Amino acid sequence: MPVTTGTRVRVFAPATVSNVGPGFDVLGFALHRPGDIVEAERSDSAGVELVEVTGDEGALPVDAQRNAAGISAADVIRRAGAAGGIRLWLRKGMPLSSGLGSSGASSAAGAVAANELLGRPLAIEDVVRSAMAGERAACGSAHADNVAPSILGGIVLIRCCDPLDLVRLPVPDGLFVAVVHPHCQVSTAEARNRLAQHLFALPDIVANMGNLGALVAALHQGNLGLLGRSIEDRLIEPARAGMIPSFAAVKRAALDAGALGCAASGSGPSVFAFADADDTAAGVARAMRAAFRVHAALDSDAWVGPISRDGAHLLP
Amino acid sequence: MPVTTGTRVRVFAPATVSNVGPGFDVLGFALHRPGDIVEAERSDSAGVELVEVTGDEGALPVDAQRNAAGISAADVIRRAGAAGGIRLWLRKGMPLSSGLGSSGASSAAGAVAANELLGRPLAIEDVVRSAMAGERAACGSAHADNVAPSILGGIVLIRCCDPLDLVRLPVPDGLFVAVVHPHCQVSTAEARNRLAQHLFALPDIVANMGNLGALVAALHQGNLGLLGRSIEDRLIEPARAGMIPSFAAVKRAALDAGALGCAASGSGPSVFAFADADDTAAGVARAMRAAFRVHAALDSDAWVGPISRDGAHLLP
Repeated sequence: MPVTTGTRVRVFAPATVSNVGPGFDVLGFALHRPGDIVEAERSDSAGVELVEVTGDEGALPVDAQRNAAGISAADVIRRAGAAGGIRLWLRKGMPLSSGLGSSGASSAAGAVAANELLGRPLAIEDVVRSAMAGERAACGSAHADNVAPSILGGIVLIRCCDPLDLVRLPVPDGLFVAVVHPHCQVSTAEARNRLAQHLFALPDIVANMGNLGALVAALHQGNLGLLGRSIEDRLIEPARAGMIPSFAAVKRAALDAGALGCAASGSGPSVFAFADADDTAAGVARAMRAAFRVHAALDSDAWVGPISRDGAHLLP
Repeated sequence: MPVTTGTRVRVFAPATVSNVGPGFDVLGFALHRPGDIVEAERSDSAGVELVEVTGDEGALPVDAQRNAAGISAADVIRRAGAAGGIRLWLRKGMPLSSGLGSSGASSAAGAVAANELLGRPLAIEDVVRSAMAGERAACGSAHADNVAPSILGGIVLIRCCDPLDLVRLPVPDGLFVAVVHPHCQVSTAEARNRLAQHLFALPDIVANMGNLGALVAALHQGNLGLLGRSIEDRLIEPARAGMIPSFAAVKRAALDAGALGCAASGSGPSVFAFADADDTAAGVARAMRAAFRVHAALDSDAWVGPISRDGAHLLP
């Protein structure tokens, strides 16, 4: 069902939590909010024009060829072999460098908006591939653990990036998430540099693989206790220790408040926790915010709710 | 239901495939055969007496305190706080140092036989713990990836060995296994030594975690194609390259004959492959045996069939 030139679409793409404890670079899930909005309309001139970026306090490039949303949209046009071009407006609705997949949400929104505007010429996995092109430009690597859950919703396992092989995992009923974003920044590049030179010992790898396998089993079996025990990360968290201010105290506060498990979101500084009830998750968020304030003198924002099963979608 | 002194039990414990591609030290599954048999009866003198070991060509210690079956049985008595002792006969039904969990099967049979003879005083997870004591004596490490599936049956994920945390994974219908044991030996100790000094790079770890997570998801979703793609091991197989004679040719032969995936069983030299039909699995076994013969001048044995859902059990 092609959309005629001149029609305008608005697409919301949610923030995402990647890594998810033991699942470095292979697991991610979608939040209901925050997220980015891309508005798009057809234009007669070829290529992508990024008309405006708002909500970023001027931090992001407005050049479509350097902006994740613009690059992703252009990749959709290229894959679809579409004639003409697209004009975009990017409304950032989430903090940058927060560990919540900000560039992933922009990439996802740009790719999905372009695909909707063109009448859905691409299968959903190709939309993910186009969004990965935006991630590559923004982050230096074409990883899928933010864009795939932002587009598909739910919890996604990335078996392999090249060739792309995605596995959608079930979202258990009764699972709630608390995410807290302290007002500081962790550079994804710096966080990755800490790992680039690092070599890992087999016992830690085995421990992480045990946790990752158990986490995937727990999601399928709806076993929230096992899910909580599996959130431990023996590989990346130690290598990045100290990058998130007072992380150990925040994690302790989350667990003391009843969290099933707690870990960094992406490369931080945001921290997420799982809980088995909405009000428990709200209490966990309060406890984590208090810990950031007391131990690191940091204000923060929090989001509480279930995992989003929907992912990116059209807004009215 | 305590068994009166003098009653005799016979327990069969099956061979197991551990590692299962990406799941080094965390995954294992049970075969229907081969396996070991332990016969046991109560005795009035304290402790465990190993009366006889057969089928091992004299290779194994007959001293109960140095034999995996005897040590496991003694650990059951200790955990149960039982009075008196046990006499054991160990019937080896499988090759040693084959990668098929030979010491694990003896440990499993010894522990299950002792627990049955005493009237099942221990919960099944404690029986696994007792069998791990036998593994520690035989292999130097108290790993559970052979004894747990040998006792529980099916496919078992070891999330953690200490404290022990086991996750039973579903066995998809229509999944068949071919296992080929070439007539040569790989020392588990030497295979582990190759890894002891090895440090691992993050891209290979990420690739393995993607495969491990996908393998667990594939078992739950009954997705045999995904299961096959997930069998690749980027961590251990390269580090141990060359330890199994002509392994690359054997694996190629398995895949060419229609195997879903193929990898070393344990630390080898046995090799296993998955297939989606019984006759395909039989053809895969023939192809692997031919490859061992042509490329490595090795005779071999093969076993073909579904994964055993039962694990160790009483024989009439």
